Amino acid sequence: MGDLSTGPAAAADRFPKQDRSRATRLRILEAAVSCLAEHGWSGSTVAVVCARAGVSRGAAQHHFPTREELFTAAIAHMAEQWLTAVRERALALPHEGPDRTYAVVDMLVAVHTGPLFRAALHLWTAATAEEQLRPGVTALEARIGREAHRLAVDFLGADESRPGVRETVQATLDMARGLGLANLLSDDSARRGRIVRQWAAVLDQVLSD
Amino acid sequence: MGDLSTGPAAAADRFPKQDRSRATRLRILEAAVSCLAEHGWSGSTVAVVCARAGVSRGAAQHHFPTREELFTAAIAHMAEQWLTAVRERALALPHEGPDRTYAVVDMLVAVHTGPLFRAALHLWTAATAEEQLRPGVTALEARIGREAHRLAVDFLGADESRPGVRETVQATLDMARGLGLANLLSDDSARRGRIVRQWAAVLDQVLSD
Repeated sequence: MGDLSTGPAAAADRFPKQDRSRATRLRILEAAVSCLAEHGWSGSTVAVVCARAGVSRGAAQHHFPTREELFTAAIAHMAEQWLTAVRERALALPHEGPDRTYAVVDMLVAVHTGPLFRAALHLWTAATAEEQLRPGVTALEARIGREAHRLAVDFLGADESRPGVRETVQATLDMARGLGLANLLSDDSARRGRIVRQWAAVLDQVLSD
Repeated sequence: MGDLSTGPAAAADRFPKQDRSRATRLRILEAAVSCLAEHGWSGSTVAVVCARAGVSRGAAQHHFPTREELFTAAIAHMAEQWLTAVRERALALPHEGPDRTYAVVDMLVAVHTGPLFRAALHLWTAATAEEQLRPGVTALEARIGREAHRLAVDFLGADESRPGVRETVQATLDMARGLGLANLLSDDSARRGRIVRQWAAVLDQVLSD
């Protein structure tokens, strides 16, 4: 009591300006992804994101001059976070054999049925119709695709020099994307669980042939 | 010359009113799918569709009272046309063996990389954010999914009573959807060709095991 330095304003003062700026940027990015996942591209204006993040329009524009930059950066940021989380989670997976293959496929598919995939999908489809959005999103999609592939090869211990292995790993990621689509409008988890189990068995055979 | 009955207005007079109404309906549906594929949901207003189809707003509203009904009917109509075309095309496929499996997978994937898939994708993603659109699109997606599955089972001669066969056929359709997504922003045909060839070989083994 009486010590005003414990209040939130004083706490903010303890952080250097740069850290606060970084925290604001992060809040904007996370709000942008949530908005995209919930309201789609046309419902996700900069104003809606600012309201959700609790920041001023000016603060958002300081970090991201255009709406296109804001949303492309938001998906890029969340994809980075996802890659980091997946790398950590992978440490706890079974070390080898069919159990590992199943666990990896299950993890890859789980990522494609969550809010990040949903947000990315809205950005992807919007980019097909919006010229301004397309170059940034196309480059981002290619980068995420390459990273996801590298990760999958690494986690599966796949030897891509053997015929058909590279394509089967790619097919696994395409199937994961398709399962993400199938989960958009309804809960597809029961059907998906059976498909993941079967696909993992088939993939494991291709990898160990 | 001088015989005005060869002009388009006179030609239209030769058709009964019901046929002209059906032709107008068809023109509206086809214009709606093209608009969706090119401009996405937010760019596809009823006015844009009417301009493209060359019909009055009143004519469109006579056939489809709401925007939601118009676009859901358009995708339903195109999906029916697609199913018919695929059934016809299937008659020319190789009759059995790995060549047939490859041809069927290639055909299923081709459908998911064309303008109909692109239009449907815009409707699907819009439906996640728009309450009014969701029930109709969810029902339609389920119906198309069931039909596509039945067709795939039929064409592949797949015996679904054997363990894993049903899930592998479903996974093939999910992979086709994922390949459609991967083709949205860039030409993915070279990579896709290799994946289709490899997956067809794997699928053929599962089917004939």
